[in-house]
Amino acid sequence: MIKHALPVTREADFSAWYQSVISEADLAEESGVRGCMVIRPWGYGIWERIQRLLDDRIKATGHENCYFPLFIPLSYFEKEADHVEGFAKEMAVVTHHRLVSDGKGGLMPDPTAKLEEPLVVRPTSETVIGAAFARWVQSWRDLPVLINQWANVVRWEMRTRMFLRTSEFLWQEGHTAHATAEEAREETLKMLEVYRSFAEDCLALPVVAGEKPENERFPGAVSTYSIEAMMQDGKALQAGTSHFLGTNFAQAQDIKFQNSEGVFELANTTSWGVSTRMIGGVIMVHGDDDGLRVPPRIAPWQVVIVPMLRDQPEDAVVVDYCKALQAELAQQSALGEPVRALLDLKFGKAATKRWGWVKKGAPIVIEVGGRDVAGGNVSVIRRDRLYRADGKLDSAVVAKGDFVGAVSATLSEIQASLHSEARARLEASIVPGADFAALETHFAEGVKNPGWLEVQWSKPTGEALDGVVERLKKLKLTIRNAPMTQAAIDGPCVFTGEPAVERVLIGRSY
Amino acid sequence: MIKHALPVTREADFSAWYQSVISEADLAEESGVRGCMVIRPWGYGIWERIQRLLDDRIKATGHENCYFPLFIPLSYFEKEADHVEGFAKEMAVVTHHRLVSDGKGGLMPDPTAKLEEPLVVRPTSETVIGAAFARWVQSWRDLPVLINQWANVVRWEMRTRMFLRTSEFLWQEGHTAHATAEEAREETLKMLEVYRSFAEDCLALPVVAGEKPENERFPGAVSTYSIEAMMQDGKALQAGTSHFLGTNFAQAQDIKFQNSEGVFELANTTSWGVSTRMIGGVIMVHGDDDGLRVPPRIAPWQVVIVPMLRDQPEDAVVVDYCKALQAELAQQSALGEPVRALLDLKFGKAATKRWGWVKKGAPIVIEVGGRDVAGGNVSVIRRDRLYRADGKLDSAVVAKGDFVGAVSATLSEIQASLHSEARARLEASIVPGADFAALETHFAEGVKNPGWLEVQWSKPTGEALDGVVERLKKLKLTIRNAPMTQAAIDGPCVFTGEPAVERVLIGRSY
Repeated sequence: MIKHALPVTREADFSAWYQSVISEADLAEESGVRGCMVIRPWGYGIWERIQRLLDDRIKATGHENCYFPLFIPLSYFEKEADHVEGFAKEMAVVTHHRLVSDGKGGLMPDPTAKLEEPLVVRPTSETVIGAAFARWVQSWRDLPVLINQWANVVRWEMRTRMFLRTSEFLWQEGHTAHATAEEAREETLKMLEVYRSFAEDCLALPVVAGEKPENERFPGAVSTYSIEAMMQDGKALQAGTSHFLGTNFAQAQDIKFQNSEGVFELANTTSWGVSTRMIGGVIMVHGDDDGLRVPPRIAPWQVVIVPMLRDQPEDAVVVDYCKALQAELAQQSALGEPVRALLDLKFGKAATKRWGWVKKGAPIVIEVGGRDVAGGNVSVIRRDRLYRADGKLDSAVVAKGDFVGAVSATLSEIQASLHSEARARLEASIVPGADFAALETHFAEGVKNPGWLEVQWSKPTGEALDGVVERLKKLKLTIRNAPMTQAAIDGPCVFTGEPAVERVLIGRSY
Repeated sequence: MIKHALPVTREADFSAWYQSVISEADLAEESGVRGCMVIRPWGYGIWERIQRLLDDRIKATGHENCYFPLFIPLSYFEKEADHVEGFAKEMAVVTHHRLVSDGKGGLMPDPTAKLEEPLVVRPTSETVIGAAFARWVQSWRDLPVLINQWANVVRWEMRTRMFLRTSEFLWQEGHTAHATAEEAREETLKMLEVYRSFAEDCLALPVVAGEKPENERFPGAVSTYSIEAMMQDGKALQAGTSHFLGTNFAQAQDIKFQNSEGVFELANTTSWGVSTRMIGGVIMVHGDDDGLRVPPRIAPWQVVIVPMLRDQPEDAVVVDYCKALQAELAQQSALGEPVRALLDLKFGKAATKRWGWVKKGAPIVIEVGGRDVAGGNVSVIRRDRLYRADGKLDSAVVAKGDFVGAVSATLSEIQASLHSEARARLEASIVPGADFAALETHFAEGVKNPGWLEVQWSKPTGEALDGVVERLKKLKLTIRNAPMTQAAIDGPCVFTGEPAVERVLIGRSY
C-alpha cells in the first residue's frame, strides 16, 4: 500500500484533508485576526497567475481596470433596499479615525474622533461604483461603461474556512452600464462565458454555467448566473457569478442618460465577480492524497529542479548542470508562455524538498544527482501520475535534451489530463432524477458522494418557491443552477407535478 | 502665443495646474467618500504598468508576494511604542460587524454587534507581518525571509490631495527578516537602489537616494532611506522609502531564531514601500501646460491611432488602414516589450480625440485621414515635442512603413528625452549653501522655485536636532536626505558651526 504524503486521505475525512493540503502545500494559514487568513507565497503565486490570465480575458472583452474606495458611506447603502438587506448583517463598520491610550497601558478608539457618518468596509462595490456611473453617464454616447477592479472585500462571516469563506477576501468585480436591457443581458452572459471558458481552459476546472433560481439571486439583481464546479466529495462550489441588475441600481443611484431622441432613460447595469475562492475549488478538484496538483497554466513554477547535493566539491558540477537546464527550459514555451522553471537551492535534503514540491503540486519535479550529470540525464516526476502500477514513485530517467525538447508537450498533456480527469468525474456524477422520491433516495443520509441530481421543474416563484426551498433544505440541498445547455423537457415538475419548464441541478454545496 | 490645452498653466498656479491635469487627463476624481479618490482607467493603467515593472524587479531580487489581513487587532500595535505613537492619530477603526435600521429610515452600526477588540484598518503592516515572521522563523535556516505585498492602506489624513495624500492609497510593502544586522542593512540599501533605478529607468524620474535625518525616520525604524524627486515647482516629493528596523520589531513581536550554535537571537528586519504617490510625482515632473506626458515604459498605450472619419462610406478604408497599422505596431518591440498600440474608435470628433490623448500624455498620437491612406502615410504627433518653433502643432506626415520601422527607436528616444529634461532640471536646481544666511536668502519669501540647497552639517541628534528642525520649519523647510553619494566636506555645519560630517539636501516638500 502506498504511504501518501498527507497525514489524512480524502476518503477518511475530506474536510480535514482540505485543511491539510492548505497547510502542507504552504498555501495559506490562520492569521491571528478573526476570519482572515495569510495567503503564503505558493498560494498567492497561484492567485497572481489567475489574475494575469483572467485579467487578459477581461481586457480582451473591452473592459478597463479602475480603483474605487474601500470605504462606503452608510447613506449609499440606504438607497437600494434589497441590496442592504442582503449585506447589512455581515458588514464591518468604521466608526472612529484615531486611537488614544485607554489609561491602562492599552489603546482604544478616541471618543473625540468619532466619524459623523460611519463607513462600511466594502462587501461589494455596486453602490460606490454606481455613484461614479451617475457622474460619468450623461448621454447615450457615454455608454456602455465597461469597468473592472481587483480589490479586497469584507463580509463578516461567522463560520470561516480558508479560501472558501473568509471575512476578507480578494476578488475582481466587473461593473458595466448599458443603454438597453438587451445589451446588459448580453454582457451578463458574455462574462459568464468568460468565466466558464477561463475555468475550463486555465484552471482545468469543469463547470456548469447556468442561471441561479430566484431565491439565490444577488441582492438587488434581476437575474444571477453562476458557474458551478463539483468537488471530489460531490459537493458544488459556486466559482463565479454574473448578475443582470436591470435598472434597480440605476434607479437607486440615478444613473440616467439622454437617448438619441433627447429623452432621459435609466441605464441597465451588470456586475460579475470571481474570488480567491477559486483556489479552494482548484484544491478540492485537483488535490490528491499527496497534496495539491496545480494545473500548469496557473502553477507559479511549472518545473522545479531539485539538485541532489552531498556537501562535496562535486556539488558545483551538479549545480552548474541544473543552472544550464533551468536556462534551457526558460527558452521553451508551453501553453502560450515561456516555461517557468525554478532551481531550488534552499537549504535541506533533496528528498524532503522533492516531497515538498509534490505536496505543493508543481506539475513537474526534476531531480539531478551526480549520476544524472554523468549520463546527461534528468530524473523526472510528473505530478499527474506520481506512482507506477506497482505503487512505487514514478521517477523516470530521461536524456536531458529529450526532456527539454518535450517539456512543452508534457505540460500541455498535464493540463489536459487534469482537466479530463475532472470532467469525467463531473459527468459521471450528474444523474437524472425523475421525482422527489428519487431526490430523497439519492441524497439519503449516509450516501457517500452523491454528486448532483438533474431534475425538471415548473420554476415556481414566490411562496411556491419558498416551499420547494424548504423541502430541499431538510435534505441539506440547494438548487445550484439551471444549465445554459438544456435537454428537452420530458416529464412533470418533481416538486409540484405541474408541467416542467426547465432542468435544474440539485446538490449539496460549500 | 500658444493656446495650451489646460485651463491653467504651471506658471500661473502650480497647484491648480496639478488638479487640472488630474481631471483633464482622466486620471482620478473625488469619490464622494472623504479623502478617498476614484482612480480612473488611464490613471489605473499607469499604476498597473508601475506594478508590473516594479514587481519584476522585486521578484528578480528574490522576494515573493504574499497577502496579509487588512485588519489588525489593537493589541498588535500596543507592542511597539514608537510605531503606535507614529500612527495612532490617523487610524481608521472598525468597531462593529453589522448594521441595523436606525428606526428613522436609515442605518446604524448594530449596538449588539460590537467587536470585543476593535480592529485597525492597516496603515502599514509591520505588526501583522511581524507576527507571521515570528511563526515562520525558528532556525537560522529559515532566514532570510523576503516577502512583499501589493495592498491598500489607510491613514486618516486631514488634508488630502489626489495621489499625493489620500486616506486610502495603494502601495507595495516589502518586509524582510535576516540573521544579522549587516545583512538587513544590505537589504535596506539594495531595495533603495531598486527604487532609485526603477524611478530613473521606468518613470524617467531623476531622484536623489539618501538617508533621512533622525526626525524623519519611520516610526520604529533605526534608519530610514528615501528617494527624493524634484517637482517642477522646486518642491521635493519623497517617492519611496526603505527602512532598517534593527531588532525593534523583532523584540516587540518575538521574532527569534536559533543560530548555528543553537543560541537564540533576535532577527533584524527591514521594510520598504512605494505607493500611488509616485503617479503624483510623474505628473509634477513630466506634465506641461497641455497636460500629462507619460514616459513610454509606463504608458498604458504608447501609440494611439485616431482615424479621421467623415461618416461616409470611405471611412471603412481608413479604419482598415488603421487596423493594419495597429497590427503592424503590435509586432514591434520597444523598451523590451511589445509596442502597446490603441485604435481609438470611440464616438467623437478626431480633433477632440487628438487633444484628449495629448492631455492624457500618450507618447505618440497618430492621425489617419483619407489623404494619409492615399499616400501610404500617417500623421505623427510626438508628445515630448508638441510644437514647432513657430508655435504650430508639430504633426509630421511620414510614410507608414518608415514610422513603423522607427517606432521602437522613437519610443526609446521619448523615454530618454523626458528623463534627460527632468535630470537637467534637477541638477540645475540643487545648489550649495555655505551658511544659514544663504538658506534664509535662498528660501526667502517670494523667491519662486528655489529648488534645494545642499548644506554641510554636523548631524546633531536629540534636542540639538530639534532646534535645527525648528529653525528650518520657520522657513517652511525640511531636511530631505543625506545623499548616498557625498562630495568631500569642506566647511563647518551651517547650523551649529561645528565641524560638519555630511552634506544634506534642504527644501520645501509635498
